[in-house]
Amino acid sequence: MTDDKTSPSRRAFLKGAAMTGAGLAAGQAAAATPDPLITEVQPWASGLGDGVDATPYGLPIEHEADVIRRNVEWLTADTISSINFTPIHALDGTITPQGCAFERHHSGAIELRKEDYRLMINGLVDRPLVFSYADLERFPRQNHVYFCECAANTGMEWAGAQLNGAQFTHGMIHNMEYTGVPLRMILEEAGLGAAGDLADKWVYVEGADASSNGRSIPMEKALDDVLVAFKANGEALRKEHGYPVRLVVPGWEGNMWIKWLRRVEIMDGPVESREETSKYTDTLADGISRKWTWEMDAKSVITSPSPQAPITHGTGPLVISGLAWSGHGAITRVDVSKDGGKSWETARLAKPGEKMALTRFYLDTEWDGQEMLLQSRAIDETGYVQPTKAQLREVRGLNSIYHNNCIQTWWVRPNGEAENVEVS
Amino acid sequence: MTDDKTSPSRRAFLKGAAMTGAGLAAGQAAAATPDPLITEVQPWASGLGDGVDATPYGLPIEHEADVIRRNVEWLTADTISSINFTPIHALDGTITPQGCAFERHHSGAIELRKEDYRLMINGLVDRPLVFSYADLERFPRQNHVYFCECAANTGMEWAGAQLNGAQFTHGMIHNMEYTGVPLRMILEEAGLGAAGDLADKWVYVEGADASSNGRSIPMEKALDDVLVAFKANGEALRKEHGYPVRLVVPGWEGNMWIKWLRRVEIMDGPVESREETSKYTDTLADGISRKWTWEMDAKSVITSPSPQAPITHGTGPLVISGLAWSGHGAITRVDVSKDGGKSWETARLAKPGEKMALTRFYLDTEWDGQEMLLQSRAIDETGYVQPTKAQLREVRGLNSIYHNNCIQTWWVRPNGEAENVEVS
Repeated sequence: MTDDKTSPSRRAFLKGAAMTGAGLAAGQAAAATPDPLITEVQPWASGLGDGVDATPYGLPIEHEADVIRRNVEWLTADTISSINFTPIHALDGTITPQGCAFERHHSGAIELRKEDYRLMINGLVDRPLVFSYADLERFPRQNHVYFCECAANTGMEWAGAQLNGAQFTHGMIHNMEYTGVPLRMILEEAGLGAAGDLADKWVYVEGADASSNGRSIPMEKALDDVLVAFKANGEALRKEHGYPVRLVVPGWEGNMWIKWLRRVEIMDGPVESREETSKYTDTLADGISRKWTWEMDAKSVITSPSPQAPITHGTGPLVISGLAWSGHGAITRVDVSKDGGKSWETARLAKPGEKMALTRFYLDTEWDGQEMLLQSRAIDETGYVQPTKAQLREVRGLNSIYHNNCIQTWWVRPNGEAENVEVS
Repeated sequence: MTDDKTSPSRRAFLKGAAMTGAGLAAGQAAAATPDPLITEVQPWASGLGDGVDATPYGLPIEHEADVIRRNVEWLTADTISSINFTPIHALDGTITPQGCAFERHHSGAIELRKEDYRLMINGLVDRPLVFSYADLERFPRQNHVYFCECAANTGMEWAGAQLNGAQFTHGMIHNMEYTGVPLRMILEEAGLGAAGDLADKWVYVEGADASSNGRSIPMEKALDDVLVAFKANGEALRKEHGYPVRLVVPGWEGNMWIKWLRRVEIMDGPVESREETSKYTDTLADGISRKWTWEMDAKSVITSPSPQAPITHGTGPLVISGLAWSGHGAITRVDVSKDGGKSWETARLAKPGEKMALTRFYLDTEWDGQEMLLQSRAIDETGYVQPTKAQLREVRGLNSIYHNNCIQTWWVRPNGEAENVEVS
């Protein structure tokens, strides 16, 4: 259900409108400064502010200094090969600003100038080619908003509730408007005749950083929607996002979104590199590991209220909000439960779901001040329903780390604080 | 026309594919450093890069240091009441990052903490109310990508071609995903019964800064799609964009998008304030000024090539790109002319146009190295066609400053440099 003036959620809100007065009183009591209405002069209205020359490139105001990427120290041995989590608990809407968008490096963020940049296309092609950055700018471009999720997102939760905050349990994800050239066009420029039957061919993609982070991608996907991207949210990729060029592999695990893209080789089979064998695979209960688990299944999380975003007002109108996404296509519905999955209400989608992009959902509701076991459940256009942790464990056992898309539970206490818990 | 694998533009590109080889050679010649293919070790691949702790909140890489907001010194007496222009010549896609998004202040960007924030609703309401920031967070929210354009955008071009660069001729605009509460819900909370017949009622909106920048808005618009917004592109509004709360008035001139929103008063008529009488009106040839010119008409501009973004490669494949928008709804078509309006080609829209949002267009073409008089012409869902400067002057004369939505012309010389010119 999308926004409209007669949405049930709005009616639900208006029923509780009187409560907002109470919320107001609470809000004023909470404010450390006098109410502007009884202050003779508001300091911020009594003088001049900053000139336009003060912010040639602006940063968030100091009061938002806690809305930043954070890493989890015990998760990796070194920050050079580590993860920065998006502060999703503090964001709204769907776009992730590049400055606080999830990043993951395997050998650190390198500095590569546009003038030095080269992209090599080799292997089973009619003519190997090397493109400069300027060359790439001459191909037709596309713009798409896509989510990029690390396969390890929520991975630490397999064994049980471990990290207390949506930023840390689900923050290995970002959602940006990428501008780039379809990889298909660049491969066709090199000529695919030499590859013969494309059905069983693969591309091997690697980055210019020390790790190279090589991955194999089936030709079908490479020719479908993969982008060679150079802009995100309108501007150049940030250094940590692969400046000047990264690969965008819609709906597939973030490890395949090669940063500082250096080479694409057409091969007659997968390389079975470190990054797709010893890593990014799921070991099942019997010790056998699943391979080629590229697509990210439908998933969702409630970002507010959550451990880092507790309820700070009293009972009455409460906005429950979160994010949903699927690597298989568009999100069509999100359900929210307040009782740990016993009963469900359908949330309002801020916009109709878009393929392989984050969808913002809201449940405009009333809080009676009692504890809640908050859960969200995403459903995508294929009919896939986000599973419970128990359902996922039945199939995958307890050895998995990657590809954990199970339903998340926040225990909200009467005091409004929330905690990461498991419900059986 | 939107993207698809068989788009004429793509076929047009592939025809000229061989030329890319030439572009490649040029690119390599231009590179100051050795070609990576004949360099034994690429320095950026021989060591470790920055750790994830290096960028808790990232900024653009130093090599993009020129992609910033800029003001025009002669335009205003002081930067405290001035304009910062979006570097649209260097951006792609449609989203404008907050850090380089157009801003305009009348008395400087003030610092107003969420705890100190208050929004007063008074006038012809059943019960005057004051909301804290926390109160606003309890109303149902909406998310919409909207453009915000200053009525003075392109205003300096009335008398003739004056500013040499798309950033300066058309950069008083940004396009962000805004998250906020419909003003309608907040007004209904205060109760509209006392206002009686709403058809002839207005709201007067003002900011908490020294200028207050008060504007009158007809009740019909106030109850339609106006938002009381607190997030842009997912994160809190930047200080210079009205932190913590601004008004969003879709499709209408930016001066009405009140920053640091302090008060909304329901009145039985417009205030006719300074900002809507002595300013933001259009003086016609006979000296009479048009009033209530709120809606921004359909408009477009080619961002590349342009004076700040010349063609740096040789002949052959060339991507011509730009932005189109309309305050009346969605852009349905954009035409591009290379000969100053004698002949037109239909451009490719990166996505179907969205209401009151920027639309990115591309013309994937071939350049023969001859001079071009580049123009773009936007058409919106109402059938409105962006006029030439001559057509606009016939109706408005030469006294106008605001609401100049005429077709822009860039003269591209054989050396690839572009200049702002007028064609008669």
